Amino acid sequence: MSSSARTRVVQFGLGSIGLMAVKAVLGRTDLELAGAIDDDLKKVERDVADLSGLRRPSGIRVSNRPQEVLGVKRPQVVLHATQSGLADVFPQLSYCLEAGAHVVSTCEELVFPTVRQPRLARDLDFLARSKGSVVLGTGANPGLVMDTMALVASAACLDVRSVRVERIVDASTRRESLQRKVGAGLTRSEFRRGLSKGTLGHRGLLESVHLIANGLGWDLDKVAEKVTPVLSPRSMKTEFVTIRKGEVAGIHHVCKGFAERKEKIRLDLQMFVGVKKPGDQINIKGKPDVTLSFEKGVAGDEATVAMLLNMIPAVLEASPGLRTMSDISVPRFRA
Amino acid sequence: MSSSARTRVVQFGLGSIGLMAVKAVLGRTDLELAGAIDDDLKKVERDVADLSGLRRPSGIRVSNRPQEVLGVKRPQVVLHATQSGLADVFPQLSYCLEAGAHVVSTCEELVFPTVRQPRLARDLDFLARSKGSVVLGTGANPGLVMDTMALVASAACLDVRSVRVERIVDASTRRESLQRKVGAGLTRSEFRRGLSKGTLGHRGLLESVHLIANGLGWDLDKVAEKVTPVLSPRSMKTEFVTIRKGEVAGIHHVCKGFAERKEKIRLDLQMFVGVKKPGDQINIKGKPDVTLSFEKGVAGDEATVAMLLNMIPAVLEASPGLRTMSDISVPRFRA
Repeated sequence: MSSSARTRVVQFGLGSIGLMAVKAVLGRTDLELAGAIDDDLKKVERDVADLSGLRRPSGIRVSNRPQEVLGVKRPQVVLHATQSGLADVFPQLSYCLEAGAHVVSTCEELVFPTVRQPRLARDLDFLARSKGSVVLGTGANPGLVMDTMALVASAACLDVRSVRVERIVDASTRRESLQRKVGAGLTRSEFRRGLSKGTLGHRGLLESVHLIANGLGWDLDKVAEKVTPVLSPRSMKTEFVTIRKGEVAGIHHVCKGFAERKEKIRLDLQMFVGVKKPGDQINIKGKPDVTLSFEKGVAGDEATVAMLLNMIPAVLEASPGLRTMSDISVPRFRA
Repeated sequence: MSSSARTRVVQFGLGSIGLMAVKAVLGRTDLELAGAIDDDLKKVERDVADLSGLRRPSGIRVSNRPQEVLGVKRPQVVLHATQSGLADVFPQLSYCLEAGAHVVSTCEELVFPTVRQPRLARDLDFLARSKGSVVLGTGANPGLVMDTMALVASAACLDVRSVRVERIVDASTRRESLQRKVGAGLTRSEFRRGLSKGTLGHRGLLESVHLIANGLGWDLDKVAEKVTPVLSPRSMKTEFVTIRKGEVAGIHHVCKGFAERKEKIRLDLQMFVGVKKPGDQINIKGKPDVTLSFEKGVAGDEATVAMLLNMIPAVLEASPGLRTMSDISVPRFRA
């Protein structure tokens, strides 16, 4: 492929997902990494290839001046992976759009932003349209396993009464930040405090519930979330944390959507150390019932990076504005 | 929903799928059945509700004059379910497009028509564009289980080396025409003759292979199909056929796509009487591997009718022309 046919991308955010994305982009012949942005001074000025564990330098040095990078490099698409809350990332997304770039982002709230941030969502949609750009929030979860996949499975049904998705993730195989996020190794009271301070827990389940409801054309009248700790039946140890018997091994997060007093959507996410049988299962009650399982479950981090890259062509083709996974073309790997 | 917000549809083709579609449309408040077309004189002039096994008359009588029905009723969408070959249905599709209607069709070749009928596909695309209409071929298989679903599962992958799908259908639970189509009850020599005359076998596996390859951006250099009979280990009987020991219980159809001498896609379809464990399984070898299973398999006829109805909103939103399942928005049930 000639270099002119390559899609120019900038990576915004160089945490573990961002660095995996950099590595993936540098390995592709159809994508060209044009810049990398992060505000961590330990990363600034370093070659992103080096940060990603690659031997061969990329020539792309990390900058903490997003507007400058975007203005000079003029990427077609920004891969954005910084924070979970739309209010936090709104200025970053604005810089991207102002520079005329499309954005594919792992920001969890952006997967269905009109729930928690209706005003910001409207502003973002307006800005994107005015610039002819597309903004999309995606990822493995939210973005694929517990929402988009359930929507696609529902296409086999002449009627859908309810949707249930259960995802069980073995936290011991995941990165340190995820083990910390699910509270592995905390006492029960530390867990409670972390929850109330918002430093613990998974973001995006609420967004997945709304993405499904909206995709199916359902008006929910109530959504209820509940997070409880999963306690360890014995002492356990991972690369990063030590868990004593009776302490927290991880999290059990359930989010339900109701319409006309009936439970229509139930998303059940368990992420803890010591999972015996990881897996994802989608159950649709309808005409006919459909049960769909991912054997061993979908690897969260790798699939999130995959979704970032795989949605690039869809975003390039979509009509301008704030899009969701249900109003964009069928997600898929593209060579 | 007010009647003005309803989508006006005409059902073209009143075989078993078409009649199931009629029944489904008549049960929906967001769709309005405006007409029904079939050339079977035993059906012409009869009320479609009656033909579909409904008690309450619909007031819609079957006509064998498609141009008249389409011209007078002016449907927004035609649900088309007549034959498998594009050459056979081309005039029917033209009538629909000429009347300004979008078309969602179960015609198997239309799922990826550029393979077997590149000229007709081009003509159809041209006609659809000139009329501002969309034409889409879909169904459970081809259309969802062995192709679109595999594409969506691949979105979790940073790289895909190969895609395998296995579908095992218990033919004894299916309609008579399917049991006949898979050769249940034939002798081996009758099966061979049926195959060579083209009266036996499943249509659409080749189209699914190409839909996957195209969706993933792969250029195949060879596609190979093989159909063999599944022989019955004992005497069996269904509602419609009697099978003696050693005679044909059904079909085993494999279609493979190769690129650079490697097998990249393998679709393996078994439909026979006496299946012990029906099911659908998608295996992607890549980064990471993904294995996805439909427990008990997706019910073919019901899901085909579901796809016809569920793709209506996607077709109404898509840009004009000949579309495939991979360049239209995410398929899903819509209430």
